[in-house]
Amino acid sequence: MKDCLFCKMVAGEIKPDMVMQNDQLIAFRDINPQAATHILVVPRRHISTLNDLAQEDAGIIESMVSAARTIAHQQGIAASGYRLVMNCNQAGGQTVYHIHLHLLGGRPMGWPPG
Amino acid sequence: MKDCLFCKMVAGEIKPDMVMQNDQLIAFRDINPQAATHILVVPRRHISTLNDLAQEDAGIIESMVSAARTIAHQQGIAASGYRLVMNCNQAGGQTVYHIHLHLLGGRPMGWPPG
Repeated sequence: MKDCLFCKMVAGEIKPDMVMQNDQLIAFRDINPQAATHILVVPRRHISTLNDLAQEDAGIIESMVSAARTIAHQQGIAASGYRLVMNCNQAGGQTVYHIHLHLLGGRPMGWPPG
Repeated sequence: MKDCLFCKMVAGEIKPDMVMQNDQLIAFRDINPQAATHILVVPRRHISTLNDLAQEDAGIIESMVSAARTIAHQQGIAASGYRLVMNCNQAGGQTVYHIHLHLLGGRPMGWPPG
């Protein structure tokens, strides 16, 4: 998608602070971090929202969560704890319309979650 | 697990306000709702934390998110928007040590997410 920020990162046109890449996804530090560790996990394929996941996207959510768990270990926040967040559409707080998972840790996360 | 609240719900010993059940999971309204719609999606199998997911649990996260998406549609919050949250360990805000996914919607969700 030509005008999608995350597609530009996947294509290498914009260079985020990358922490992981594989054939399915990229993961990088959020530019407006809300915790000491705040990383976004983004599938390479453009999918606008969680509502738009199709049959051919089977497995992508599992891969995203699996990557987040691996990164949590690498970043040293697995034992202390972390929060995973996915926002869908406006009331959910979605701002970039290319699905992504937030991994937050390194501080106690409050409740409610926004 | 004998002393696990969610295992007791899976076993039918405690009856939550159920919104969905299938062979892999149950979903019910949170007793301390943080939004007009606040539903928990819980796998039948006892898995303490996201860190404890094993090879044999492959597919469970995908099923949980898929159920949450279906429920969001059924509850009429798919188009307006919703947030999915999973907490791991203390700093993540996990209180019941049987993995679960929070589905929240029906109000604008704020940022940061806790």
